[in-house]
Amino acid sequence: MNYSIIKRTLGWLLIFEAVFMLVPTLTAVVYSEWDTLWGILASIGACLLVGVLFLIGKTDNVSVYAKEGMVIVVSSWVILSLFGALPFWLTREIPSYIDALFEAVSGFTTTGATIFVGGSTADGYLDLPKSLLMWRSFTHWVGGMGVLVFIMAFLPLSGARNMHIMKAESPGPIVGKLVPKVRTTAKILYAIYFGLTVLEFIFLVCGKMPAFDALNTAFATAGTGGFSIKVDGFAGYSPYLQWVVTIFMLLFSINFNSYFLILCKKVKDAFNLEVRTFLGIVTAAIVMITINVYVTACAAYEYTFSEALRHSAFSVASVISTTGFVTENFDLWPTFSRTILVMIMFIGACAGSTGGGIKVSRVIVLYKGAKHEMKRVLHPKQIKKISMDGHIVEHEVVRNTTAYLVTFIILFVVSLLVVSLDPAVLGASNNAIVTNFTAVAATINNIGPGLDAVGPVGNFAFYSWWSKLVFIFDMLAGRLELFPMLVLFSPTTWRKN
Amino acid sequence: MNYSIIKRTLGWLLIFEAVFMLVPTLTAVVYSEWDTLWGILASIGACLLVGVLFLIGKTDNVSVYAKEGMVIVVSSWVILSLFGALPFWLTREIPSYIDALFEAVSGFTTTGATIFVGGSTADGYLDLPKSLLMWRSFTHWVGGMGVLVFIMAFLPLSGARNMHIMKAESPGPIVGKLVPKVRTTAKILYAIYFGLTVLEFIFLVCGKMPAFDALNTAFATAGTGGFSIKVDGFAGYSPYLQWVVTIFMLLFSINFNSYFLILCKKVKDAFNLEVRTFLGIVTAAIVMITINVYVTACAAYEYTFSEALRHSAFSVASVISTTGFVTENFDLWPTFSRTILVMIMFIGACAGSTGGGIKVSRVIVLYKGAKHEMKRVLHPKQIKKISMDGHIVEHEVVRNTTAYLVTFIILFVVSLLVVSLDPAVLGASNNAIVTNFTAVAATINNIGPGLDAVGPVGNFAFYSWWSKLVFIFDMLAGRLELFPMLVLFSPTTWRKN
Repeated sequence: MNYSIIKRTLGWLLIFEAVFMLVPTLTAVVYSEWDTLWGILASIGACLLVGVLFLIGKTDNVSVYAKEGMVIVVSSWVILSLFGALPFWLTREIPSYIDALFEAVSGFTTTGATIFVGGSTADGYLDLPKSLLMWRSFTHWVGGMGVLVFIMAFLPLSGARNMHIMKAESPGPIVGKLVPKVRTTAKILYAIYFGLTVLEFIFLVCGKMPAFDALNTAFATAGTGGFSIKVDGFAGYSPYLQWVVTIFMLLFSINFNSYFLILCKKVKDAFNLEVRTFLGIVTAAIVMITINVYVTACAAYEYTFSEALRHSAFSVASVISTTGFVTENFDLWPTFSRTILVMIMFIGACAGSTGGGIKVSRVIVLYKGAKHEMKRVLHPKQIKKISMDGHIVEHEVVRNTTAYLVTFIILFVVSLLVVSLDPAVLGASNNAIVTNFTAVAATINNIGPGLDAVGPVGNFAFYSWWSKLVFIFDMLAGRLELFPMLVLFSPTTWRKN
Repeated sequence: MNYSIIKRTLGWLLIFEAVFMLVPTLTAVVYSEWDTLWGILASIGACLLVGVLFLIGKTDNVSVYAKEGMVIVVSSWVILSLFGALPFWLTREIPSYIDALFEAVSGFTTTGATIFVGGSTADGYLDLPKSLLMWRSFTHWVGGMGVLVFIMAFLPLSGARNMHIMKAESPGPIVGKLVPKVRTTAKILYAIYFGLTVLEFIFLVCGKMPAFDALNTAFATAGTGGFSIKVDGFAGYSPYLQWVVTIFMLLFSINFNSYFLILCKKVKDAFNLEVRTFLGIVTAAIVMITINVYVTACAAYEYTFSEALRHSAFSVASVISTTGFVTENFDLWPTFSRTILVMIMFIGACAGSTGGGIKVSRVIVLYKGAKHEMKRVLHPKQIKKISMDGHIVEHEVVRNTTAYLVTFIILFVVSLLVVSLDPAVLGASNNAIVTNFTAVAATINNIGPGLDAVGPVGNFAFYSWWSKLVFIFDMLAGRLELFPMLVLFSPTTWRKN
C-alpha cells in the first residue's frame, strides 16, 4: 500500500474543501449571519491546517494500482464528510456530531435524507442560517459528479492513477473515457455538469423563483441530492417550477456521455439502450401512477388529471433519479403506486450520471444474463454472447454485475438486521418493518425519503446513533458502488506488497 | 416437441392420482363421512376417465430432451393440481373452484397457505370433513418429494427421460444421483422419505397425539407443507410434541443425499458445507430470536426462557424449512425477530430436501461468487476457481445460480406489482405493503404464512381471484424452481423441431 500518495491526495482534497466552503462564507456575509460565519471560518481553518500538514513531505512513489485507487477514493470521501460536518457542528446548529456527520454524508453522497427536525421561518424556509442551507445544497453539487474527478480536472496529478480513481468514484459499471486523456474527460464532464446547472438556474429564475432558492435547487437537482430548503419541500412552488425541476431531475439521471455525443452530433449513439430503457421505465411508471392516483378515490388527496400527472411525474423523476424532492406525500398514495415507487428506488438512474441506485445498465445486464441462461437451459448447444448496442457484453461485466447484485443484497440484509434492533423506530413509525426497509433502501440507493416514518414528511432524526452510523456507511457504500467500501474489510488490502 | 410422450406421462399421473385419493376415501369410510365420500369418489372417477383417455394410443417416440422434461414436469403439476382440487370442490366444502385450486396447489407445492376461513369444531379441528383434512395433508406428502419421482420409482419408463424429469422436479441446483441408475435413486429417496415419516409418526404417537393428528402432522412435516388440521395450529399440543415437530421439520430440510451417505457410513461426507451452513444459520437465528423475545418486554406475550426457546426454535424451523406450522403469532414479536424470520423465508432449506426457498446451496454459491469477484477486482492477475467441499464449482453452476436469483427477483417484482393492484387487501390488512410483500414471499418460497393479514393467524381468502391466480403461479414456479415454469413463455419452446 502506497500510503504517501494517499496522504498527498487527502491533503489536496482538504485544501479544495476549504475553497468549497467559501460558498457558505459568502452567503453568510450576504445575509449578515455573523454568528454563523465564525463557525464556517473555523471549519475552513481546520481544513487548511490539516490539509497543509498532510501535504508536508515528499512523494517519490506515484504508482497507484486498483487497490490504492479504491483506498484513495474511500478515504477521500470519509475525510470530506468528517470535515464537511464541521460547519453544522461548530455553528451549534446541529449539536450532535453524529447528526452533523449524517447530514454531511447525506449531502455529499447526494442522498438528501435529513436529521433536521427544527421548525420553519415565517416565509416557509427551514429554520437554519441561509449560509448552512447553501452549504447543504452545495455538498450535493460537489458530491454529484465526484470530488476527485473535480480535483483531477484542475490539478496535474500523475496520469496513471487517474483511471483507477475515476473507475472507483464514477457511478455505474462501465467508465467511458470520452477522449483518450482522463484529465480532459474530467474537464468535459464538469463543463457539461456546470452548463446544465446554469441552464436550470436560468429556467427557475425565469419562473420567478427567488435567486437564493433557484441556486439551492439547481445545486441539489444537479447532484440529484434532494435536500430541500423549505419545510414543505417543493409543494409551495408553482406548477411551472415543479415541471422544470421534474425535467432537470431526469436530465441529470442520464449518462453524461450521451450529452457529449449530442454535442458531437452523434444523436443516434446518444440514445443508446440504457437511455431508451430509462426513458421507457420512467414513462411506464408515470402513466401507471397517474392513472392509479387519478382513478382511486381517497380522502387524503383529490387531483384533477393535470395535478395527478404533475405529482406523478415529479415523484417518479424524484425517486428514479434518486433526488428525493417532494411535492406530495406519496406515502398516502394507493398501494400500487407506492409499490412502483419502492421498485424504481432500486433501479435508479443511468450509469455515468449523478444519480444513485443499482443503475439501469446493471438492470439490463442482469436481465439479459438471466434470459441468456434460460435459453442455454433449453438449447444447451447454442452458445451466443450477450450484446448491448451492437457491442458484445464481455463475460466479466456480467460476472461483475451479478456479484454487485449479491453484494448489494448482503449489505442490505445486514443493514436491515442491525437497524431492526433499534427500539427507537417503534415509537416513531406505524410499521417498523416498512420504515426500516425503506430507510435502508433510501440510504443505500442515495434517494432520501422512504415510506412511513422516513417518508416524504418524516426524517431520520429519531433513529439511535448506531442506526445512523449504519446509514452513513450505506450512503457512502451506495455512492461509491459498494466494492471500494467493502474492499477495506478484506485483509489482503492491508497486506504489505 | 414430443407431445405423445407428454400425453402418456399425464395419463399415468392421473391413474396414480386416483390411487392417492384412496387415502381420503378410506378416511371418509372410517369416519362415516358418506356425503363427502361421493365427492371424493367422483374425483377418482374423473381422474381415471381422463387418465385412460390420455393412455389410449401408441407412443413410438420416447425421446425426451431438456425441453420435453420441463414441459412434462410443468404440465404434470398443473394437471395434478387441477384434478387435486376436485375433492374440495365436488364436496361443496370449497364452493369456488379458484379457491379449491389454490388449496390444492398450496398442498402439492407444500406451501400450506390456506383460503379456508371456516370455523372450528368443538374439539378444535378445522370445520372440514376429516377425509378432506387428510387429503390436504396427503397432498403435502405427495408433492414434497415430487410426484414424478414417485411414479418413476414404480413405473418402468424410458431411462433417457428420467434424468431430465428428475432435474426439473427436484429442488436445488444440483441433482445428485446416489447410484448410477436414476430409478434406483428414486426408490432410495422414497424409502428414506417413507422411513422418516413413519419415524415421526411413532414419536408423535408416543407423545399421546391422536393417531389421526399424528398421521396428518407427519405427512405435512415430511413434505414441509404446513396445512394445519387445528384452528390454533400447533399451539394446543404439548411442548414435547412441539419439539418433535421442530426437529423433524429440520430433518426434512436437509439434503436427502446426506441420509444416504449416513446409511453408507460416510458420516463426514454427510455433513457437507451446505448442511453445516444450514445448521449454522438455524442456530444463529434461534439464539438471536430467543434472546430478543425473552429480553424485550411486550404485552402480547410473556415467556419463560424455555418457552422463548421453544417458540423461537419452532418458528425458525417452521420458516426456514418452509413448512409454515405455527405455535405462536410471531407477527406480534419484536421488529428484529420478525426481520430475521422474513430473511430466512428467502434462504429456505437445503437442496435435495422437501423444503422450498432459494436453497442454502444457492446462497453459498452466490456468496462465494461475490467474494471471488471482489478478490478479482483487487488482484486482477490471480485467477482461482470457486470450490465447495473440495470440488471445484463449475463456472456454469455459478452462472445458472445468479440467473436464478435474477429470475427470482423479476418474478417477485412482477407478482408484487399485480397483487398490489388488488383493492381487497386494504380492508383486510394494517399495512398493505407488508401483507403483499410477505404474501408473495410466502407463496414463491412455498412457506405458507407471511406477516400482517397473511400472518400466522390470517389467511389468503380475502384476496381477489386474480391475486390468487398469481399466487397459484408463484407457488408452482417456486416449487419447480422457476425455470420450467418460465420456459413455457419462451416461443422457442413451442417451435417445431
